[in-house]
Amino acid sequence: MESLPLDKFVLHPAFLASSEPLADLKLCQARLQLDVRWPWIVLIPRKVGARELEHLSHHSRGQLMDEIVLAGAAVRAVGAAIGRPVDKLNVGQLGNITPQLHVHVIGRRPDDAAWPGPVWGVGEPVPYAPEALSRAIAAAQGPLGAMRSVS
Amino acid sequence: MESLPLDKFVLHPAFLASSEPLADLKLCQARLQLDVRWPWIVLIPRKVGARELEHLSHHSRGQLMDEIVLAGAAVRAVGAAIGRPVDKLNVGQLGNITPQLHVHVIGRRPDDAAWPGPVWGVGEPVPYAPEALSRAIAAAQGPLGAMRSVS
Repeated sequence: MESLPLDKFVLHPAFLASSEPLADLKLCQARLQLDVRWPWIVLIPRKVGARELEHLSHHSRGQLMDEIVLAGAAVRAVGAAIGRPVDKLNVGQLGNITPQLHVHVIGRRPDDAAWPGPVWGVGEPVPYAPEALSRAIAAAQGPLGAMRSVS
Repeated sequence: MESLPLDKFVLHPAFLASSEPLADLKLCQARLQLDVRWPWIVLIPRKVGARELEHLSHHSRGQLMDEIVLAGAAVRAVGAAIGRPVDKLNVGQLGNITPQLHVHVIGRRPDDAAWPGPVWGVGEPVPYAPEALSRAIAAAQGPLGAMRSVS
C-alpha cells in the first residue's frame, strides 16, 4: 500500500463546511462560498503550512495574483447568474480564524447586506437554493476553466 | 510654463487626512495609517484611473504583490517599535468608500480592538502620540527603504 507523503496538502475542514469546490487552478483550489448574499470565491493555495503571503515563493505569489484576478471575473459571472451584478470587487487575505492561507474574492453592491463595510462576520450565511447554486457554479466555472490545472 | 499631463496621478484626498507618507516604492506610495490601534500601511499604486486589480497590467500586479509582502515586513517592524508585536497579517483591497485602488496591510493580535473580525469601520481611529509616530515611521522605513524608487 502506498503511503501518503508527510507533507501532503490537506484542506482545512472549515472550508468543507462553508464552501463548494469549483476548480483546481495551478496554485489554488477555488471554492464557492455558500452564502447567496454575496457572489464569493475563496482561493486556497495548495502549499503545506502556508499562513501568510510571505510563505509562498515569489513565483507562487505571482500565480496567486493571476488567480485572484481570474476569480474576480468568476465572481462577476456568478453575480450576473444570480441576478446580483457586481459593482465592486473586494479582496481579502485575513486568516484570523482559519489558519490556512486563503484569499477571499467577493462581489459587492451598494444595496448589499454590509455595504460599505466588509462582509466578514456580518450576520449569518444565507444558503443558496439548489437551482441558484447550480447556476452559480456553472457561471463561475466558465472563467475558471480557462486556467484549470491539468490533472 | 510647462503644463501637467492630463493623466497625471493625483492621490485621493481621503488618504491625506488618514495617513502619513512613508516611501514611494516602484509602483505604490506607501503610507502609515494614523491609527495607533494597529500597525497599518496603505499602498496606493500610482496608476491613473485604477480601481480594481484587473486595471493594473500583469507586470504591475506582480510588483504590487512584491510591495504587499514588503509592507508586511514594515508592518511587523512598526508593531515591534510601538510595543505591539504582530501575530498575523491582514491584507485587504476593498475600496468601497475611497474610489482609488489601494491595498491595506495590517498587523493583528488576539488582544486587538477588533480581533478576530476585520478592522475596517471599527470604532474611531486613535491618533499616535508624536514620539510613537516618529518611531513607527522610522521603523517602517527600514524595510521599505530596500525597495524605494529612485527619483
